[in-house]
Amino acid sequence: MSTKAYVAEGLGTALLLAVVVGSGIMAQTLAAGNNAIALLANALSTGAGLLVLITLFGPLSGAHFNPAVSMVMAARGELPRAQLLPYLLWQCAGAVAGVLLAHAMFDLPLLQASQHVRSGWPQWLAEAVATAGLLLTIIGGVRHARDKVPMLVALYIVAAYWFTASTSFANPAVTLARSLTDTFAGIAPVDVAGFVLAQLAGAAIGGVLGGWLFAGDDAA
Amino acid sequence: MSTKAYVAEGLGTALLLAVVVGSGIMAQTLAAGNNAIALLANALSTGAGLLVLITLFGPLSGAHFNPAVSMVMAARGELPRAQLLPYLLWQCAGAVAGVLLAHAMFDLPLLQASQHVRSGWPQWLAEAVATAGLLLTIIGGVRHARDKVPMLVALYIVAAYWFTASTSFANPAVTLARSLTDTFAGIAPVDVAGFVLAQLAGAAIGGVLGGWLFAGDDAA
Amino acid sequence: MSTKAYVAEGLGTALLLAVVVGSGIMAQTLAAGNNAIALLANALSTGAGLLVLITLFGPLSGAHFNPAVSMVMAARGELPRAQLLPYLLWQCAGAVAGVLLAHAMFDLPLLQASQHVRSGWPQWLAEAVATAGLLLTIIGGVRHARDKVPMLVALYIVAAYWFTASTSFANPAVTLARSLTDTFAGIAPVDVAGFVLAQLAGAAIGGVLGGWLFAGDDAA
Amino acid sequence: MSTKAYVAEGLGTALLLAVVVGSGIMAQTLAAGNNAIALLANALSTGAGLLVLITLFGPLSGAHFNPAVSMVMAARGELPRAQLLPYLLWQCAGAVAGVLLAHAMFDLPLLQASQHVRSGWPQWLAEAVATAGLLLTIIGGVRHARDKVPMLVALYIVAAYWFTASTSFANPAVTLARSLTDTFAGIAPVDVAGFVLAQLAGAAIGGVLGGWLFAGDDAA
Repeated sequence: MSTKAYVAEGLGTALLLAVVVGSGIMAQTLAAGNNAIALLANALSTGAGLLVLITLFGPLSGAHFNPAVSMVMAARGELPRAQLLPYLLWQCAGAVAGVLLAHAMFDLPLLQASQHVRSGWPQWLAEAVATAGLLLTIIGGVRHARDKVPMLVALYIVAAYWFTASTSFANPAVTLARSLTDTFAGIAPVDVAGFVLAQLAGAAIGGVLGGWLFAGDDAA
Repeated sequence: MSTKAYVAEGLGTALLLAVVVGSGIMAQTLAAGNNAIALLANALSTGAGLLVLITLFGPLSGAHFNPAVSMVMAARGELPRAQLLPYLLWQCAGAVAGVLLAHAMFDLPLLQASQHVRSGWPQWLAEAVATAGLLLTIIGGVRHARDKVPMLVALYIVAAYWFTASTSFANPAVTLARSLTDTFAGIAPVDVAGFVLAQLAGAAIGGVLGGWLFAGDDAA
Repeated sequence: MSTKAYVAEGLGTALLLAVVVGSGIMAQTLAAGNNAIALLANALSTGAGLLVLITLFGPLSGAHFNPAVSMVMAARGELPRAQLLPYLLWQCAGAVAGVLLAHAMFDLPLLQASQHVRSGWPQWLAEAVATAGLLLTIIGGVRHARDKVPMLVALYIVAAYWFTASTSFANPAVTLARSLTDTFAGIAPVDVAGFVLAQLAGAAIGGVLGGWLFAGDDAA
Repeated sequence: MSTKAYVAEGLGTALLLAVVVGSGIMAQTLAAGNNAIALLANALSTGAGLLVLITLFGPLSGAHFNPAVSMVMAARGELPRAQLLPYLLWQCAGAVAGVLLAHAMFDLPLLQASQHVRSGWPQWLAEAVATAGLLLTIIGGVRHARDKVPMLVALYIVAAYWFTASTSFANPAVTLARSLTDTFAGIAPVDVAGFVLAQLAGAAIGGVLGGWLFAGDDAA
């Protein structure tokens, strides 16, 4: 039965969003306008939280926390097709719940809509690159260093917060949920679709490239 | 005999508080009002110190350093009931000693009372979330990655310093001791009870949730 | 066949440059003149990215991403001589492509020339020290802790960004490519030759010193 | 023969000082008066460098880089008594050479004397605590997690830079050498003796406490 897997995806994604949005609020509040320190704290917190969450929940569900990852895993035959839709629903519901939890902890209105414009081809290119890199990290990590995947994904995201112009959302559920917070980590609802399309394109590219590069037959 | 275990809990908790309070004093002094940098230094120091202390003392006592953790472990049958009270006493005594040591090193009055107000439902929610997450991390880590527990707890706390609105005390002994320092890490004595109650509630939730989610029978 | 090895060197070096240059642009933009925070973010991103890239691509190509490293490995007989030139070409081509990718993501002109003067004996000494230390790290790491080489190289570079006066380019392909960006990480084209010569001298010193110090016969 | 061990102690201590002093110079220069960021960069660079150096040189010499550590190891019978004096001499010579190297890279006068006053009982207490903690970390780490000692020492020092009022020199050779640089990491020559005495007292305490706490017979 898959109950624990679904709960793991939902709870894990909720906690991931609580970390991303909560640390963003704390960082923005304390940094008083110094966005470099705010992003540094946001990136380190997210990386630390991701490593913990993937280690804890990986054995239960794979710890995708990310529809783009689940879709690629389903395409690769590593996630049963019948579980794909439940995975996506639990991820999205968990992500939204995590944002509400962050708002409650920081005494902010629970329901908000971001006004943070994130749009345009450079941003979309950045999201495609970010998501392709995430898939390469996962596929290559599973192939060459399976027990280090939590650390690899965490460090990849820390780097990607800084090297991509979009600060690397790289996750449709995260993108959706971050449209519901008008704080540091937000994205305007109208800009969600562009980000998600770019992420799915990047995921497809990363899945195909990683599938070839990290195939079992290294002699090819 | 349990002498070494008790000394390990007392000494470990003392050093943990010396790190938390001492690095807070240093950070506040150097940061000159930039609280984001101060919290970043405080969080990284605490995480680094925790990883070392848990690795060193874990084999002697379990390295709880935390009454809420010891209570859950006793309830789970992983700490002999007869050792629970001594554990709590050594933890609290060690925590207070650690604060005095930090004050002595930084040439501050040894005995102080914090004036830092930390109260209200959002803060208590944050403490409950912080402590529940800590228990999930410990129980899940022991189940899925026993040799990485020191790292997981350390990284969890680094993230929790930032993503919870209360900066994640998540520890009744630490809370008690931090009421005795009127520096960066302090909490007003009158606010200790609320924090501790929230922590115990969170610990209970985390213990039950983790007990189900990370039970041995993954097929459930 | 070596196709995957060459692609790994090219793609890995491209992504390394995207991280170095991209995080430099992001850091410089957000830090608003505070170069200490900018370099801290740049260093941590580079280290995180390097650890991931070396772990992923190491089994395919050795993950040199660096002509100086490939030359020493060829001299040590650990890279077939016939593969040296292709390695260098793929590394340089990848490095340039990575800079273009960073520019595209950050909506900057694709083709630029740096105006950042980096010259003089202290800078060249720093580059020689940085590259010698890198080779010591690789040779000693492979000898004493093979599975930790990705982490060792990453941490070495984090330290070297700060302890060498040149911020540790330590890589001819990286140096060449960074002459093509007029951003935080740039180096004026006229200064490339001096850096590369210093790097090659340092690599030779590190290769010889490491070859003796970390030879198999520890009784010597 | 011990040639490689002595070279490892000398070269390792030299590189450690180059990292400590060099990153201090870089940090102070870039931070423009923000000492919290400077110490953060200094601490992270030192920790990263230490982890690399101890991993590389540990198998050759034990990677003490520290007369206080070598003295305790000799007392514990883990370093042949006849090697103690050569160890101390190579460590001190290496430390001084590392400071000169840092000065040369940063284009500063090679010979300097620090004017940074570091004195008084709180500072000496801090140095004793710092060194006792270092010995506990080493002895406990070797007992419980031998392969993680490089990481444990590195993280301990990162924490100790912040939680001790003296920023944790914890090393007589480092203290001596840092009196020869009038930069961020310096200590006035007249204050060296007090620091070294405090360090030796702390090392003795840490050695005795660790010897009991981490003795092989955990049932005691």
